[in-house]
Order: sequence, then C-alpha cells, then structure tokens
Amino acid sequence: MDEKEVKRLLESFQAGDVDSDHVVQKLRSLPFEDLGFAKVDHHRAIRCGFPEVIYCAGKTVEQVLAIVEARLGGGGNVLATRATDEMLRATKDRFPAADCCSTARTITIRQREPEPSPGTVAIVAAGTSDLPVAEEARVTAEIMDQTTSTFYDVGVAGIHRLLAHSEELQAANVLVVVAGMEGALASVVGGLVDRPVIAVPTSVGYGASFGGLAALLAMLNSCASGVTVVNIDNGFAAGYSAALMNRLAYSPRPE
Amino acid sequence: MDEKEVKRLLESFQAGDVDSDHVVQKLRSLPFEDLGFAKVDHHRAIRCGFPEVIYCAGKTVEQVLAIVEARLGGGGNVLATRATDEMLRATKDRFPAADCCSTARTITIRQREPEPSPGTVAIVAAGTSDLPVAEEARVTAEIMDQTTSTFYDVGVAGIHRLLAHSEELQAANVLVVVAGMEGALASVVGGLVDRPVIAVPTSVGYGASFGGLAALLAMLNSCASGVTVVNIDNGFAAGYSAALMNRLAYSPRPE
Amino acid sequence: MDEKEVKRLLESFQAGDVDSDHVVQKLRSLPFEDLGFAKVDHHRAIRCGFPEVIYCAGKTVEQVLAIVEARLGGGGNVLATRATDEMLRATKDRFPAADCCSTARTITIRQREPEPSPGTVAIVAAGTSDLPVAEEARVTAEIMDQTTSTFYDVGVAGIHRLLAHSEELQAANVLVVVAGMEGALASVVGGLVDRPVIAVPTSVGYGASFGGLAALLAMLNSCASGVTVVNIDNGFAAGYSAALMNRLAYSPRPE
Amino acid sequence: MDEKEVKRLLESFQAGDVDSDHVVQKLRSLPFEDLGFAKVDHHRAIRCGFPEVIYCAGKTVEQVLAIVEARLGGGGNVLATRATDEMLRATKDRFPAADCCSTARTITIRQREPEPSPGTVAIVAAGTSDLPVAEEARVTAEIMDQTTSTFYDVGVAGIHRLLAHSEELQAANVLVVVAGMEGALASVVGGLVDRPVIAVPTSVGYGASFGGLAALLAMLNSCASGVTVVNIDNGFAAGYSAALMNRLAYSPRPE
Amino acid sequence: MDEKEVKRLLESFQAGDVDSDHVVQKLRSLPFEDLGFAKVDHHRAIRCGFPEVIYCAGKTVEQVLAIVEARLGGGGNVLATRATDEMLRATKDRFPAADCCSTARTITIRQREPEPSPGTVAIVAAGTSDLPVAEEARVTAEIMDQTTSTFYDVGVAGIHRLLAHSEELQAANVLVVVAGMEGALASVVGGLVDRPVIAVPTSVGYGASFGGLAALLAMLNSCASGVTVVNIDNGFAAGYSAALMNRLAYSPRPE
Amino acid sequence: MDEKEVKRLLESFQAGDVDSDHVVQKLRSLPFEDLGFAKVDHHRAIRCGFPEVIYCAGKTVEQVLAIVEARLGGGGNVLATRATDEMLRATKDRFPAADCCSTARTITIRQREPEPSPGTVAIVAAGTSDLPVAEEARVTAEIMDQTTSTFYDVGVAGIHRLLAHSEELQAANVLVVVAGMEGALASVVGGLVDRPVIAVPTSVGYGASFGGLAALLAMLNSCASGVTVVNIDNGFAAGYSAALMNRLAYSPRPE
Amino acid sequence: MDEKEVKRLLESFQAGDVDSDHVVQKLRSLPFEDLGFAKVDHHRAIRCGFPEVIYCAGKTVEQVLAIVEARLGGGGNVLATRATDEMLRATKDRFPAADCCSTARTITIRQREPEPSPGTVAIVAAGTSDLPVAEEARVTAEIMDQTTSTFYDVGVAGIHRLLAHSEELQAANVLVVVAGMEGALASVVGGLVDRPVIAVPTSVGYGASFGGLAALLAMLNSCASGVTVVNIDNGFAAGYSAALMNRLAYSPRPE
Amino acid sequence: MDEKEVKRLLESFQAGDVDSDHVVQKLRSLPFEDLGFAKVDHHRAIRCGFPEVIYCAGKTVEQVLAIVEARLGGGGNVLATRATDEMLRATKDRFPAADCCSTARTITIRQREPEPSPGTVAIVAAGTSDLPVAEEARVTAEIMDQTTSTFYDVGVAGIHRLLAHSEELQAANVLVVVAGMEGALASVVGGLVDRPVIAVPTSVGYGASFGGLAALLAMLNSCASGVTVVNIDNGFAAGYSAALMNRLAYSPRPE
Repeated sequence: MDEKEVKRLLESFQAGDVDSDHVVQKLRSLPFEDLGFAKVDHHRAIRCGFPEVIYCAGKTVEQVLAIVEARLGGGGNVLATRATDEMLRATKDRFPAADCCSTARTITIRQREPEPSPGTVAIVAAGTSDLPVAEEARVTAEIMDQTTSTFYDVGVAGIHRLLAHSEELQAANVLVVVAGMEGALASVVGGLVDRPVIAVPTSVGYGASFGGLAALLAMLNSCASGVTVVNIDNGFAAGYSAALMNRLAYSPRPE
Repeated sequence: MDEKEVKRLLESFQAGDVDSDHVVQKLRSLPFEDLGFAKVDHHRAIRCGFPEVIYCAGKTVEQVLAIVEARLGGGGNVLATRATDEMLRATKDRFPAADCCSTARTITIRQREPEPSPGTVAIVAAGTSDLPVAEEARVTAEIMDQTTSTFYDVGVAGIHRLLAHSEELQAANVLVVVAGMEGALASVVGGLVDRPVIAVPTSVGYGASFGGLAALLAMLNSCASGVTVVNIDNGFAAGYSAALMNRLAYSPRPE
Repeated sequence: MDEKEVKRLLESFQAGDVDSDHVVQKLRSLPFEDLGFAKVDHHRAIRCGFPEVIYCAGKTVEQVLAIVEARLGGGGNVLATRATDEMLRATKDRFPAADCCSTARTITIRQREPEPSPGTVAIVAAGTSDLPVAEEARVTAEIMDQTTSTFYDVGVAGIHRLLAHSEELQAANVLVVVAGMEGALASVVGGLVDRPVIAVPTSVGYGASFGGLAALLAMLNSCASGVTVVNIDNGFAAGYSAALMNRLAYSPRPE
Repeated sequence: MDEKEVKRLLESFQAGDVDSDHVVQKLRSLPFEDLGFAKVDHHRAIRCGFPEVIYCAGKTVEQVLAIVEARLGGGGNVLATRATDEMLRATKDRFPAADCCSTARTITIRQREPEPSPGTVAIVAAGTSDLPVAEEARVTAEIMDQTTSTFYDVGVAGIHRLLAHSEELQAANVLVVVAGMEGALASVVGGLVDRPVIAVPTSVGYGASFGGLAALLAMLNSCASGVTVVNIDNGFAAGYSAALMNRLAYSPRPE
Repeated sequence: MDEKEVKRLLESFQAGDVDSDHVVQKLRSLPFEDLGFAKVDHHRAIRCGFPEVIYCAGKTVEQVLAIVEARLGGGGNVLATRATDEMLRATKDRFPAADCCSTARTITIRQREPEPSPGTVAIVAAGTSDLPVAEEARVTAEIMDQTTSTFYDVGVAGIHRLLAHSEELQAANVLVVVAGMEGALASVVGGLVDRPVIAVPTSVGYGASFGGLAALLAMLNSCASGVTVVNIDNGFAAGYSAALMNRLAYSPRPE
Repeated sequence: MDEKEVKRLLESFQAGDVDSDHVVQKLRSLPFEDLGFAKVDHHRAIRCGFPEVIYCAGKTVEQVLAIVEARLGGGGNVLATRATDEMLRATKDRFPAADCCSTARTITIRQREPEPSPGTVAIVAAGTSDLPVAEEARVTAEIMDQTTSTFYDVGVAGIHRLLAHSEELQAANVLVVVAGMEGALASVVGGLVDRPVIAVPTSVGYGASFGGLAALLAMLNSCASGVTVVNIDNGFAAGYSAALMNRLAYSPRPE
Repeated sequence: MDEKEVKRLLESFQAGDVDSDHVVQKLRSLPFEDLGFAKVDHHRAIRCGFPEVIYCAGKTVEQVLAIVEARLGGGGNVLATRATDEMLRATKDRFPAADCCSTARTITIRQREPEPSPGTVAIVAAGTSDLPVAEEARVTAEIMDQTTSTFYDVGVAGIHRLLAHSEELQAANVLVVVAGMEGALASVVGGLVDRPVIAVPTSVGYGASFGGLAALLAMLNSCASGVTVVNIDNGFAAGYSAALMNRLAYSPRPE
Repeated sequence: MDEKEVKRLLESFQAGDVDSDHVVQKLRSLPFEDLGFAKVDHHRAIRCGFPEVIYCAGKTVEQVLAIVEARLGGGGNVLATRATDEMLRATKDRFPAADCCSTARTITIRQREPEPSPGTVAIVAAGTSDLPVAEEARVTAEIMDQTTSTFYDVGVAGIHRLLAHSEELQAANVLVVVAGMEGALASVVGGLVDRPVIAVPTSVGYGASFGGLAALLAMLNSCASGVTVVNIDNGFAAGYSAALMNRLAYSPRPE
C-alpha cells in the first residue's frame, strides 16, 4: 500500500499533475490520524504486525475511551493494558463487546476472526502474587492469535511442582516465565527447554526486592542460555514478544 | 536415549537382575562427565539444542584447554567466550582447527557440518566501540548454523544511516541490536520491523552510563513492542537466543 | 539601579552625611522583601532576566496566595508551578486574571505586555503521558514571551511520525524534547537538527524506569551532540532555559 | 544540496532515464562513506552544523588514524576526544598540522579559516583537578569558532574568588561550568547571570562522589534557573552545546 | 552516682552482707525502667547530657503518651519528634504544659529552668520547603538551652541574600545549614565561616533528588572544610549535635 | 512415604499391572493439590520440615481463607504472615481457633500438640519500632515449637542495656537480632556470643536508611563472625531459619 | 577463667590487699595483647568459640607475619584469608607447618588436634568460577573441625546435575551454597532440604551482576525458607557460620 | 586587615585620590595569588581559620611542589593529603623540613610555633585496615594544634576492647570514629559519650560494602545522638572539623 501510493504519486508527477516540490513534500508524509492529544497509527498494523497497545496509566477515562473508539475505526483488534477498575467498567458500558479482565487489568475487543496459532506459548508463573502480570501476558498473546498454556504457582522452592510439567513445558514453542522475589524460575525453566524463554520480573517481594530489581537483575544474569528479559511487571511486552517469536514458526517470511 | 535407558533399566528389574532399591537409585542419575572442577554436560546438546558455552573469564588457560578438550570429545561444535589473548593463542596452538576471533574474543571449533539456516539473523550495532559485543553475537549465531547479516555504525544520531537499510532489516527473521550510551537504537529498530528484536546494552559510554546501566534501563523501557533484553555486553546470550528464535522458523516442533 | 544606589551612597559619604562604617555595612545589603517565611526577590528580574518561579510543592494554599500577592506587587509576570487543584481554584478566585492550566499544573498572571519572540521554541513530546511536563515547558516559555510550536505523540517507536515533521523541527531555534520510558526521542531529534536541544526525562514508564532514571541516564548519554538535560519531570527548567537560549537570537548583549 | 539532488533525480525520472522503482530506491539513500568498521558521515556537517567528533576511547591507534584521514578528506575541521598519549603522538607524527592538547586529551586539525564568534563562551571551573574536562570544553568550542574566556579554580568554598569575576561572567553569552565534588558552582553561577549555563559534573572527589554522581545529581537539582546538564566528565558535549547556543546570537536562522 | 553505688556494693561485700557471686552479678546491671515495649533510660541524661528523644514515627498515640509520661517522671525536659497532628493534639490535651510545633512536628515539655547558652547556634535554610526540618533543628537546640538565630530562604541562586547576612553568620558559634535540591548552601556557608557547620540534606526537590540523595551526596562532598553531615531530613540530629558542640564553648570539661 | 509409593509402583509393574510407560510417567509426579490459583504442597512438611507459610500480601481475603482451609485439611499447623486487619478478623471469624497477632500481623492455627524445644531462640530487637518484625520472628519460631526469649529495646546507643543481658544472650542456642537504622546491634551481639546470629534489617529509619538498605548493608558487612542475614523486615525468614538451626541441637539426623 | 579472675580479685580486696578503686578499675579490663597496630584477642576463643580470623586485605606482608606469630603464641589454630601469593609464600617460608591454599587464598596452621564433627557441612557451588569462594568456606569450616562434603559445578541451568545429588545434600546438617550470576542455586537447594542453608553470592557474572549485587539480592529474596545470606564473596563468613550451626548438633549447651 | 583596607580605600576616595567607579571596582576584589592553574588563597587563613589543604589526587608532582612553595610563602603551616609515594619523596627532597607520613599519605610543614590545645581530640579506629584514614585525621588535627589521643583496633565485635577505654573516651572533648565494614563503632561510641562524635566511613570491606557505602549509610542512620558524618575515607575532613569544634572550648568568640 505504501509503495503503491508512492508510485501513484510519481505517475501524477510524470503526468504533470503535480510538481517536484509537491512530490518531495509528500514523500515525507505517512498516514496517521490526529486526535489532538495522541496520534493513532493505523499504519502500524501493516508495518509491525499489530496495532499499538493503549497504555492506560496516566490517562483519563475519557482519553482511554476516545482512543479505543479511534482504534476501533481502524478495524483491527484492540488491546488496552493497566486499566483501572473505572476504565474497565466505562469501556464495558460503552463497548459491550469488550472483554475486560480484572486480574490482568486489560481490555480487549476482537474485530477480526481469531486464527489460533498451531504452536503454543506457555505462560509459567512462580506464585499466586505474580498472576496479574502472567495474565497480562496471556491476554496479550491470545489477542494476537496465540494458543497458550498456563503453569501457575510452580516456584522453585518446590522444584518437583515444576518438574512434574517438564514434558508440557518442552512441548511449547515459546515460554514466558513470570517471577518476583529472586526470579530463579527463569533460569530453571531455561535449563529445561531448548526454545526461547522470555523472563518477566515482577515487583512481588519483601524489602530488598526493591520493586522487582532483584528479580530483574537475576533474570539478566541467568546462567541458562536462551533467556531474554522484559521490564518489571511488563506482561504485555512478554506476551507481544512471544507472539512475534511464535509467528516465525507458522508464518515464515516468504523467501 | 534417556527414555530408552530407563526402559532398559525397568526390563532388568522385571527380569530380576536388579532390585527396586537399585532402580530408585539409578533413576536419579543423568549422564555427565566429571572433570573434578567442572562437570561437562554432553547430555545438554540433546536437552537444550546446543552444548554449554565455555565462559573463560575467571578461568586459567589450563582450565580452558582442559574443558575444550573434554568438550571436543563430545563430538559437537565448541564455543568459548571472553577468552584472553593468551587463551586465544594457546587454544590455536593446541587445536589448530580452532577459529579464534580477537575482536569478539571467541574460540570456535566446528566438528559438525554447517547447515546454514534459511532465514537470517541481523546484527545491528550503533558504534565502532560496540563491535566486540556485536561480533560475539555474530560468532555465536553462526556456530549455531545461523545465516547472519551485519549493520554496523548505524547509531540514531544519524538516523538516515539506519533508515537506508530499512528494507534489509525488515527482511531478517530476528534482529540483534547492540548499543551503548543511551541505547536508543533498539527502540528505533523495534519500531521499524515486525520481528523479534533482542537488545544488547554495552558498557560503552561517558560517566553516567555507569558501565552500561543507562543503555540497559533504556532498552528495558523501550517504547517499541517486541524488544527483549539480555545482560550488558552479553553478545553470546543475544546470539544464542537469536538462534533459538530463528530455529522456530525452519525447524518447527513435530506436532 | 544597583550601581546607582552605590554611587549615591558614596556621594552621601563624600558629603559627610554617613561615616565609613555605615558605607561598609550598606555595601553588603541588597534589596529583597521579607515575608517571614520567604524572601521575595524583586531584584532578580533585573539580575537574571525573570522573577523567581513559585514552586508550589510543599507549600500551603495560603503561602502560595501570599507569595503570588507579593510577587504581583513587584509588577512583573507571575509563574507558579506544581500547583494542586485546590491552589489553582483558590488563585483563580482571588486573582481572576490568573491563567490556570490543569494539565501543566501552572498558574500564570501577565502584568506586562507580551512581546512574542521572532524565533520559535519547539516542544516535542513522545507520548500522551508526557503531556503535563511538556505543557509546563510550553507555559513557562510563553510567559517569558517565547513563540512556541508543539509536536506531541511522536515517540520513536513510529519514527515516521517524527520524520514527517523534520522540516518544522529544523525551523525552530531551540527544541525541548520531553520523553519518558527509554528517552530515545532526544537522541533522534538531536541528530535531525543543528540547534540546541533541551531534553526532559519524565517519570512515565513501567517498573525499571525507576521514576524516570532510565530516561534521565539515556538522555545524559545521548549519542547526539547538542543535547543538554534538565531534571526529571522538570518542564519549567526546560522552558526557562529554552527562553534564555532563544533570547540570544533576538536580544543579543550590546557590545 | 540534498534537495537539489532529489530534484535532479526527479528530472531524470521525468525524462524517462530512470524508472519509478529506481527513484523509490534512491530516495532512501543518503551520502556516507563506508570504512568497513565506521561510517564517516560527511553529510552531517550540513545537517547538524559540525562533523561528528571522533570518540577515541575503545578504538585502536590505527582506527583513529584511519578515521582522521577519512574525515580530513571531507574538508572540514577535525576534532578527536579522549585520545591516549599514544594517539596524540601518532596523530602528530602522521598529521603535523594537528594540534594535540595533553590536558584536554584532544586532537584538532583546522582545515577551514577560523571565523571567531562575536559573543564569548565562558568556561568556569571549580578546581585544578577539573581542568582536563574544562579544557576539553574549551578546545571543542574553539574548533567550532567560538571566542572563549576561562575562569579556573573559582570553587564556592572561597566564594569571593568567583564574585571577583561577576562582571566578566555576566558579559558572556553562554557559560560552561565544570565542577566535581558537590558541584555547587553551577547553582551559584546560575544565580549570577541571565544567560544559559551548561553544567558539567566531573568525577573528581572522595568516596561518596561515586564517580561524579554527587555532582551530577546536584547539578540536575540546581535551584538556579537556566542550568542544563551534560554527562559526567563530558567537556566535549558542553563545548559543542555552548557553540550551538552562541551561534543563535550571531547566525540567526533566516526568516 | 554510678561509682558510688559500686563502692557501696563493695562495702556490703566487705561487710559480708553479700557474696562475690552477687557482686559479679550486680556489676552487670544499670538503672533503666521497663515499660514492656520500651526501656526508658533515665540514666542517659547523666551519661550523655540529654534524655533520649522520643521518635514518634511508627508508634501509636497511646505509646507516645505512655513514654512521655514515663519520661516526665524522670524530671528532665521532654522532646518528641515526627509527631502526627493527632499526637500533637493528644499530647496537648493530656499535658497542657506541652509546647507543640506543627511546622517542626515536635512536642517539648520543659521541666527544668532554661539556662540560655552564651554563644549562638545559627539555623540557615535554603528555601521555604526546608522549614519543617530547620524548625526541628531549632526546637531541639532550644530545648537543650541553646540560643539560636535563624536565616531562612537564603538559597544560593540569589547569593546576595546570603551574603547580606555574612557578619551575623560569622558571629555564630555553630551553624546548622538545611537545604534540599542540590544542597549547595552548605558549601557556600562553610566557605564563609571558621566555625563548625552541620549540614542537613532535605528531601525537597524534583525527580532526580531521589528523596534527598542529591543533597546528601553534595554535602558529603562539600569542597568547604569544616562541614559534617547528618541524615536526610534529620533536623533533630543537627540540633542535638549543634548543642553538644556549642556546650564545649561555655561548659568545658573540668581539667 | 515417597519411597514407599515408588516401591509399590514398581511392585505393580513387576506384577504386570502397569506397563513401563506408565511407570516412567508416574515417576515424574509428586503429590500436590491444585486449588486453581495456588498449589498447596502437603508433601512439603515431610520434605522440608514445615508447611509452606501463607504470604498474604497481594492476596485477597477470600484467597487467604481458601488457602488456610486447604492447609488445615493437611493436618499440620498453619502460619500466615503479612495479614491485613481485615484478614485477621475474617480468619478469626471463620476459624475461631486461629491465633491472630496484630503486632506481628500473623495468623497461626495449631493442629498438632506443641513439643517445646529444649534450647531457646533469643529474639533481640533494637527499638520499639522494630517490634512488628521481631514479633513475626517470635511467632514463626513458636509455631515451629521453639522456646523463645525476647530482649526488646536494647539498641547500641545505650550499650549497657544490652550488656545487662549478656548472660541470658549467651544462654540461647540461636539468636535473631532485629534492627533498623544503622543495624549495629547485630555486630555487637555477634561479638558477645558463640552461637549463630540471624540478623534482620528493618525499614525503620530516617531518609538515608533507604527503606532498610542501610541496615541491610551494615549487617552483611558485620565485623562479627557468625552473623547471617535475611531480607529487610523478613521476621518470618529469621524465625524459620532459627528453628531449623535449633533443631540441629535436639533432633540430630540419625547416623 | 574470667570469672575466676574476678573472684580472685574480690578475695584480694576482701583481704585488704587492694582497695575498692583498684577493683573498679580492674573490672573494666579484659585480656588482650597490644601489637601496636592490632590488638590480638586470645580471649575471644573462649568467648566466641574461635580466634579472630586474620583478614589479609589491606595489610602488608610484614603485618600478616607479625599477627600470625602473635596468634600462634595463643596456642590455637590460625586462619588467614584473602592472602596474596606473596603472603602465602612468605608465611610458608616462615612457618613451614602452614597450609596455604592458592585457590581459597587462605593460610591455616593447626596447633590443636583435629576433632572431626559427626555431622557434615555440604559446600555446594554453581560454577567453576565460584570455586575460590567455595574453597574459602571449606577451609574455614575444616579448621573449625567440621567434616565437609563438596558439590561443585551444579548450577541450575542443568538442574539434573544438582538433583542427582539430592540424597547426599539431604544428608548434610548444614549447607553452604555458593553462586554468582543470578544466584538461583540457593533457592533450589533450599527447597530440597530441611536444614539451614547459608547462601554466598559471588561477584562472578556479566555486566549487570554489578559485582555480585544481582546474586546478593536474589538470595535475600529467596522464595525458599531456611536460607540466610552472607556478604558477597565472603566464603569465610559462610564457613564460620556453618561451623557454629553444626556445633549445635554435637556440642549442645549444657542445660 | 580586610576591613582596614576598605576603610583606607574610602579615605583615598574621600581625599579625592580615586573616584567612585574605582571604589566600586576595588570593593569586588579580594586578595589571592594566581599561579595560573590554581589560585592560592592566603586570605583564607584569616577568614576560615586555616589555609586550604592541598588535595594531591589528580595533580602532578610538579603541581604539588609549586603549590607547596606558594603556600609556604604565605607563612602558615602547610598540609597536603592523598600524596603518592613519589610526592612524599619529592617534597622531602625539596623541603627537608617537611614531615611525610606514609601511612596517612600526608605532608605537613610547620612554620608556626605549635600551641597545643588544652582539650583533646580522640581518634578511634575499628580495625588495622582503617589506619590510613585515622592517621590522616590525626595528622590534620595536630597540624591545627590539637592534642590528640588514639584508640586503634577497638571494633565492636570485641566490645570489651572498646569498653576498657570508656573513661579515656569520655575525657575527650571531640571524638573522631573511623570504621569500615558496618560502621557500627560510631553508634556505640556515640552512646558512651556526651561530646560531639565525627564519624568517618572507610572503604574497607568485602563485596557489599560497595566502597564504603555500607558504613556511610550506617553512620548517617546512627541511633546515637551527637554523631555527624564526613565523606568516605575523608580523614582530613574529620580532623579539620574536630579542630574547629575543639577550638570552641578554648578559643571562644569574644562577646
């Protein structure tokens, strides 16, 4: 579409309909819609594979509703994260088709038919307190058409609970590992599988976790190979990256 | 092989050759070879897809040579990182087939025929000073049979240098982005492509880079989706993870 | 005025009206008015080009009103930052001429005729959540008679949104770049223009932004030359510095 | 020149010499020369007002010489920072016109006639140990044609030493303030003048200066308005930014 | 009193009233009264020159009242810091003689006749927001019989405001300097006087003050000699130390 | 029990009741009960000597009640920490046998007859504000059948208060030392005794305690030998570890 | 011995040989020998169970030799840690009975007959690079008469290597776990055993290990109960504490 | 002298020898001698009680010698700190009267007759490794005419060693406490005396001392009142401040 537009422009120029100044100027522009306070980028779905997520923190309920509405007009699926209870309610009221998850604090609205991925993304979480982040990852992956499987409350202090699922873990294409405290789960899972592991540190923990810093540093220093890391509590980033990785398996780039 | 061994053991037990105590005991053991100071894990290649890397920092030249030798006996390819000049020389002397890269500070020895991957892993680096880390990533990916392409010295201060390669970047299956200072390159590349981006912060920079902390935090906070992060200066981890990701594209798990 | 006063004092001394002890004592004094809890420095407008801003955080509503009143008596424009909603309302009630911006959390009262600057100060912001800080910078620059232009929601994850404005950015005399998360926008803008860039990190971001530390460090480590940095969320400092810089262009010091 | 090239390209296209595919392709490219390990960007002088500086840290002597040579070919002035003694000597040997400053650790080669700026950039330094950074700022500003004045060893513990220069400081267009330890000099100078102050923290200090962190944080938190900050020990960034600011005063953008 | 008790004990032993085991046991004990949750140490006034302060943070109103009551029984003056509004009210109700300062958040009850010190302790504060800490220092010094003088709102951005008080500052025996943001005031005052300066960093400031860390590090790195530092926001510690220092001037140890 | 189950399984296999595939599969499983959101591990009491504690922070009241109920079904004692007032009340209502300590914020329910340990665990706390953490340690040790003795408000500023208890401290088998601020108490106690000391830093303190970091670092750097450290405010970990250590004294492993 | 001396003193006093002043004075003194630069505390063996270790870092070879000599005169075993190669050689030369371990960098000299403990202290280490710290712990425990067993190179990335030793680990009375990088080994071991685990973080690791901080924080946040932590790289502290703990098992305090 | 000069100037003005412009100009100047790279401030001795110390770190041997020479010309005593061995030797060669202390790394040259203070400054140090810092404090205090007493190797792990000196410590007017590791000594000494205590953290310690940060934070958080803190390893600052404090006792300001 982008290249087509450019060629059409060049044809207009060739036909003498527009001059070269106009062409130079046009070449700099790309499609985005201006809401005044936020540019919604419909083009992004084409360029990057998925619309921008709506990050609700620091926005008003009205801003969230306005962006959701604009995004819906683009025709794709909508995902909003870090929604407050009030945002969840207001969105459900305005858009009854919205799927609002209070654990994950996400809003999703499907406008395109789901095409579930053949391989699976496993979401592994250490403890009960890590569930909001794990669920944010799961919701994100699913709205991006990923088949998911979940393994919750399998922290390393009871390593047998994790090992009981070794085969299922090894069957996944990509694994998201969510853990707070010392974040050791990422290293242990990374040592069990030969697939990419995305580690998500959470801010769960006593004093010296320093808001997730302990788990973050641990995961960055993982002795297991194949582990990459996203920001503290950022389940969305993990789910999104997992979807990009798994798509390699079933939607390879045409050679 | 592992499961076979277990079943053979059970047959011995059924045949009365061994008692149940012996079976219980055996079930706990897995194959690894004990060098006294380091257990070389031949089994890992089967479990995780690639032998453990030899991390040379903090080891003596003699220890490195001994581990390389043990590893060669396992029959797979060998990769050693963070080798000193002395280690590079000593290894080359002892094992003439070794490929020693002084920029990347790596030693590689191929024992298995290369089977270059169909898709490519792009290695993108911001500045000249980031080359050792970028090269460590490249060497790692290549010994794991990845086809690579490199884009060096394309830092964001001259964004046109990067944009000139947009199409080639978009053609890669996985991208490794190496940058020190403010680490902004990862976000910009992440916004250009719809494939997984692995960001590697480097310790390159003036005072307040704090040994790479600035770039690390920047990459973890990337506003671009699809970016995951490895440890500061850890080109190996990036190359290894990139290989795992790209393998999804051409070596999908049998359903 | 200051020098004049001193010379008048010396004349009184020469005339024998005062003795040398009195002169020595007087020479130490400079004009400021004592409110008991805060010394309002009318003299500052002469010495530094603009009255002190009223920093409302940690003050009571009553203290703010009292300082505004004292400042109005000085005859210059008034600017207060970090005002709470209650302060905005109370000030509007007491001083109907006050311009209260709830996004920027600023109060401004014009007492001097505006003289808009010939060159412009561009305010560039990465995301919707960065608006309060960007607006604080804009309000500050404008009360200091700067002509401003704004470019909001042009974060680097969609680099085309920024590049679409390249020419306008290059037309500004000074640029203020406001960004949270990884703060990469400052480096990219810095690479596009040949004018001073003032980077303002914001505290917007997930866990490992550590209250804006990630963006702050990124901006300090910018690979683009010409970028200087102010404190986290300190839109006022950016707007003020931008005004000082742009004044060089149209109000050069007499030789 | 850039726009001209584009128009010439469009004329070729209009003339039928090239097809639209070729135009699209060409529009993505910008001039830079590939040295293999570092892309030298001659174009930058036009876009950003000065060639990229050569940051010598982490480069070999040979790499530095090669980049200097390539840069000289571009015809502009050359500046290299953080040069080791060996680099200084080797450059002086190869390029006798080079001006090598061992205090500032800089290499400069003038190829263009100097056109000294009408206004001055003042370089203010707190102590003797801050001189290398202050001199790096001075050398940078001067190779960019700035007239400079220096005020060294005027730390705040003897405030009279600084105040003795108040008038000269107030006569400068832009001020660079270099200080380690508690970095208080920036605030005091900022309170004395009504021009932009660029603060440079240095790593000079006892234990809890933490490599310049104390001065950096102090400067970012300056209670004086008009102070912006660059990275620890980054005299180059300060000198460069000062030049950009002062250019506003004598080389205003044509309206 | 302590030594007397010991000698009396030895006399009892000599007289055969107690045996040696009893003496050994007794020698270990020192007088303190047990409230169950807090041991009130009346003896401390003798050993250290002033009763323990009551640190109210983390205590209940009831605990505070109980400790105040026990302390009053000891006969000395009472000082409580970090009191909540509720504690201030409840204490005033129960003990009408209490002096409750809502700015300093202190409670003081005088039971001993004041004996004002001959020399003075100067309390110097940078800004209006630093007043609570400055006042805590003042109240503490005064309950310890110090004559105080206060210099508020004399931050370094308007250095003339401070210099106008040079002579008065130089007349003090000890100076407490309270400042947030960049904490530069301590260095400037330290350079003006030849008496001990106690610096108190406050948590006042924008983002990168990191809760007072910026001012703390600045003060520890003061280039002025004679400056010692107490904890962030710890006006009590400063006032207490100032009293100990000034007592040296008028209550020297008998030789 | 575990080994028995395995042997029984092997007997079933030997008897031909199950095939080898089934055995391999079974050997991976271990007993735990799935509540959906949290796996309760009854087996842990056997493997590790005590059931998992219920960490209430970040859980809902309902989740806590459900886990308590499931845990009670396991037959052992129950311990929950970091309970809110609402949780304490709700648990007491539902399970009248529950012992709810509002200082320690713990819930304990005894289902097994207490068998008080012969040796004692001493709990030593520096100040009144450290009591919640000290009490959490005490409650934890007691539900694990430890005999405890407490020494509260014996901070090092009045060293005689601590020394008065020297003999009693030396009589304990294990000592838990709880202190905030500078955490010096751990070193002093560590120097007085020849038994293991477990140090617990608390988040009590003024600004630069940084939420307990000061005490944590101090304790890790203790100059006294025999001191080990747990997380900030983690009284549970200290009490649990103390119990494990003291058990060595009276319940030695059979040789 | 101490108490005896006191009683003898009291007898002298009762006999009138000394006066009460002399007794009071004497009661304050305790036996230590003054070397001028270091007080060697023979008494400590009695009070704390083992002589002070000689911490060699920051001492000269001569100082080390002098302290070793003084310590030998006390009759107990001698342990010195952090010895340089030169110290190891010089000590071996002067005291041929010294046992110098170059991996652990320790010097030990036995003067008392070994009495090996009945229970064992297990030393578990994650990787080859952790050996110096693990060996320091082992040497320390052994000079304190502990029976040790070692499990080296059992990091969590290959969890089966560790699990193969589960029974032996469970047979130990106390476990010392040494790990750098993410320090996950401590949590996994802590989940396998019901005995005290002492975790030792090491400074082994890539960039963001920040000199062992990552492992330290991870261990402090361990989700496994029963884990206490010592300082980074402090094998001595771990070995010493392990000895104190295991002594509880075989040398209980007389009731 | 300063005031006299000013009055003489006013007399010249009154006599018509100079005009008012000249007076205004002169009033800004204060005496200092310009060495080109460092302004030596003879005036400071009058204003602040002691000449500036020469901080040798980061200076060349030649610079140190030149500053020493200039300082000697001022007639006062000279103190240089942080001297390298080469500086010590070179200074001794050039100025045979110099007193060079290799432990303290100081150079002192007396030009004024010593007038030992009546009260004493006690220097207390925790361990042998803290001696360089303690000695720097002692040398500083003594060149400022203080009588000192030293108490070395009295760390809190053997509290009896410190308590044995309680009376001598209580006899001092001011106490400097030098300690690394956990820095607990400052709190314990602070609790024993009723005089000002200056705490000096040192960088002595294992990993998590983080270059003295642990001791610094501990001392800032001291639970003992009357403790103020100087920078890590800054013995000079402690000695200097101690001298200022003790001077209050014998050289009170004339009323």
